[in-house]
Amino acid sequence: MARIVAKFGGTSVGDLDRIRAVAARVAEMAAEGHQLAVVVSAMAGTTDRLVGYVEGITIKTDRDIGVSADPHEYDTVVSAGEQVSAGLTALALQDLGLKARSFTGWQAGVMTDGVHGRARIKAIDAAALEKELQNGVIPVLAGFQGVGPDGRITTLGRGGTDTSAVALAAAIKADRCDIFTDVDGVYTADPRIVPKAHKLDKITYEEMLEMASVGARVLQTRSVEAAMNGGVTLQVLSSFNRTAGTMVVAEDQIAEQGVVSGLAHTRDEAKIALQGVSDQPGVAAAVFGPLADADINVDMIVQSASPNGERADITFTVSRADLNKATAVIEKIRASLDIENVYTDAEVAKISVIGVGMRSHAGVAKTMFSVLAEQGINIQVISTSEIKVSVLVAEEFVERALTSLHTAYGLDAN
Amino acid sequence: MARIVAKFGGTSVGDLDRIRAVAARVAEMAAEGHQLAVVVSAMAGTTDRLVGYVEGITIKTDRDIGVSADPHEYDTVVSAGEQVSAGLTALALQDLGLKARSFTGWQAGVMTDGVHGRARIKAIDAAALEKELQNGVIPVLAGFQGVGPDGRITTLGRGGTDTSAVALAAAIKADRCDIFTDVDGVYTADPRIVPKAHKLDKITYEEMLEMASVGARVLQTRSVEAAMNGGVTLQVLSSFNRTAGTMVVAEDQIAEQGVVSGLAHTRDEAKIALQGVSDQPGVAAAVFGPLADADINVDMIVQSASPNGERADITFTVSRADLNKATAVIEKIRASLDIENVYTDAEVAKISVIGVGMRSHAGVAKTMFSVLAEQGINIQVISTSEIKVSVLVAEEFVERALTSLHTAYGLDAN
Repeated sequence: MARIVAKFGGTSVGDLDRIRAVAARVAEMAAEGHQLAVVVSAMAGTTDRLVGYVEGITIKTDRDIGVSADPHEYDTVVSAGEQVSAGLTALALQDLGLKARSFTGWQAGVMTDGVHGRARIKAIDAAALEKELQNGVIPVLAGFQGVGPDGRITTLGRGGTDTSAVALAAAIKADRCDIFTDVDGVYTADPRIVPKAHKLDKITYEEMLEMASVGARVLQTRSVEAAMNGGVTLQVLSSFNRTAGTMVVAEDQIAEQGVVSGLAHTRDEAKIALQGVSDQPGVAAAVFGPLADADINVDMIVQSASPNGERADITFTVSRADLNKATAVIEKIRASLDIENVYTDAEVAKISVIGVGMRSHAGVAKTMFSVLAEQGINIQVISTSEIKVSVLVAEEFVERALTSLHTAYGLDAN
Repeated sequence: MARIVAKFGGTSVGDLDRIRAVAARVAEMAAEGHQLAVVVSAMAGTTDRLVGYVEGITIKTDRDIGVSADPHEYDTVVSAGEQVSAGLTALALQDLGLKARSFTGWQAGVMTDGVHGRARIKAIDAAALEKELQNGVIPVLAGFQGVGPDGRITTLGRGGTDTSAVALAAAIKADRCDIFTDVDGVYTADPRIVPKAHKLDKITYEEMLEMASVGARVLQTRSVEAAMNGGVTLQVLSSFNRTAGTMVVAEDQIAEQGVVSGLAHTRDEAKIALQGVSDQPGVAAAVFGPLADADINVDMIVQSASPNGERADITFTVSRADLNKATAVIEKIRASLDIENVYTDAEVAKISVIGVGMRSHAGVAKTMFSVLAEQGINIQVISTSEIKVSVLVAEEFVERALTSLHTAYGLDAN
């Protein structure tokens, strides 16, 4: 018997039929002898409707004096969605003859900081939930929410329910936190693009973090960090079938680790190249300071001196949605930095090779560059971390790059 | 400057435009120098949708083992509606430049008993709200909800937001509790039926209670009781215009009191007459016990002995919706009580004359009976209380009865 936290997202609890299906799944796990706690998101669409209310109520009046929504009230309104789905899920479990009760964030003692709209969980006082567990009751926690130091409701931001689930798992010392999604695990590459991709049985937290940050949108980065810090074993699995998912664990829990665990890619990239920038101290700050001020995240950066040594080329990537905003920022500083040319390219993609094994194995990057060269794919920008090599290529090459790299690293399914 | 609790129902906060109108109204009152606290219902339709979810989630599975919705979860789900409208109303007030913040029931310290679905407020720990008031902040309380002794969310049942408003007014020692509705006050009779009806400036709690219980659906009985017990001055007024409403106050606050304050009527009546019931001790219990067991409220009752003294006639009224259920109950006990005939009539109405002045003035009932006799209207059943005389008449006579009584008691507007 294991103690398991089971998290179901908005699609999984999207309507009453789906909530009943969630209850049936939980009942199966209970019948297998597991002790369960459930964490749910709001029913799909609910959060958008509530956010729409908040935006709608505040934009009409006094728009020009710049009054924007009070994040305390935003959180009060938006958190109602999870309260509803938690209550309904508890009812559906009861309807199957199980003992269950809902917990809002404040009832479960989910204490957060006071940063409304994207609060961080500081602690969970799990005494109340532990008592229910001891009595054979399945607690159903409203995800995405907590209570701040001032007693007001806070929400955790995007992917917050994953984080709630992980924090709960740590607080009640669960053996595992199962994240039920619409995919059945983490793959060596996107199986829609690489037909020979296969599901990984296990992956390390670090790898999962890299996968999450480069576009394999299975888990939110923050929840993986929280799991790593709390020592919580995660399982990513499908809410629609019964196959085992992918376990996300510490490195020492993986007996035999390949050098490369998987490939990730994202098309949400755009490249900006500044040619002939006056090469003097502080030029990078002069470019990236204004971009940061405009709330634009810059990802890959390459700076190279021009042959004559007085001019440099700076190339960087931003998310595609930010390209126009970034270009406008650059145009403003162009004259003062004496930039000769500005090129932009929205048809680029980032391909990443990920594996904790590359810490101790040289040659991963070399293989990547050779394979791409053989395929005639030009590498535009390179960035590396301890367990990842990423390259920027023209978007048209995504499929060919992924397929050939997948084979080269020995990831193809038999 | 007065301290005022302003309550707005579901229609008043039915959509974002209406919530903005509520905020504008509150801003006007604040500009007049009043110190305000606001209490809101859920947006019209929201509660029905949430109740529908609760009913929908629980009826499909195990219907025949009789699992019905856990009232704890019912309350958790349904109370989310007021949380949303309170947050949105606070935002709309902020948008007008006012300081405002929402309070859920638990945040405002609205302590109730543990009777979920129709809890009673035991106390409000108004310290948090008082602090906001002192700081010039308008607290916006989510109506209809509180927290039970076990820390779970409770709801107050039908008309609960009126009760929340009255309890809050008592807790913060407000000078007045304004109940904003879709009518502009309490009338001497329904103005749609009696064109000469006029709005009352003042009415006593006792009269309002009688009016409420016989169908003038302006205020819920429980909130009037709470106001009477807490010494809270109520004002019933329109959320759509700016005219003064009707004050509901203690008797000693009304300088000159007419004998009759108003007329009320309800068409939601049905009559059941049992003729020739074996007249023996316990017969009333034998009739009304089974009706009570079937959850049928009996209103007026008349029992009269037959001429021969061995048989009695029993006539009583139930709400029209309960007529079929009541008839079925009577058919079951008919044989054992040896009832000769059972007549039913759904086309009846109850007309009531209400006024605290009739405690010290005889002749009110006599006038009523004379006027109805002059009009050729047969009185089917009579019931009286200290401040009310009610008669049951054929429904077709409602208009004629009300109009002629209105004139006879000197209530016609000049």
